[in-house]
Amino acid sequence: MSDDKRNKTTVDIYGQPYTIVGTESASHMRQVASLVDEKMREISMKNPYLDTSKLAVLTAVNTVHEYIKLKDELDQLQLELKREKD
Amino acid sequence: MSDDKRNKTTVDIYGQPYTIVGTESASHMRQVASLVDEKMREISMKNPYLDTSKLAVLTAVNTVHEYIKLKDELDQLQLELKREKD
Repeated sequence: MSDDKRNKTTVDIYGQPYTIVGTESASHMRQVASLVDEKMREISMKNPYLDTSKLAVLTAVNTVHEYIKLKDELDQLQLELKREKD
Repeated sequence: MSDDKRNKTTVDIYGQPYTIVGTESASHMRQVASLVDEKMREISMKNPYLDTSKLAVLTAVNTVHEYIKLKDELDQLQLELKREKD
């Protein structure tokens, strides 16, 4: 494992500190952390009985669901672009 | 809250059952759950000391990061498509 260009950033998500290591900038990592924190709070408002672990899993579920929708959109757009170019 | 077209599916993620309610098909929900489960196991392999809650938060962090990258790609593609059409 090379440590070239690897940044280590500590972020706070739902009251807990997390150290994230990656090639992305610290500001990108903070943006990601802030979105996860926001989403956890949103889900928690709707489901106040959930413990942090289940809350986090449902946040991950929610995010993967949105990722798949976006991926479908991207695939459609790629097809459309291909048709335009042909 | 209307129950029109709302599906209730129980999925298993990282050994825990979750009841997910949504307008998506049960098969879509199972696909999402399976991806979250897979990602949690992947992160757990690399960080065996993490508890389920932190593991799930990092899974969400990971997915949001991938979501943002995909969103950038989509925005680029939309621009490219606009240029092709103009």
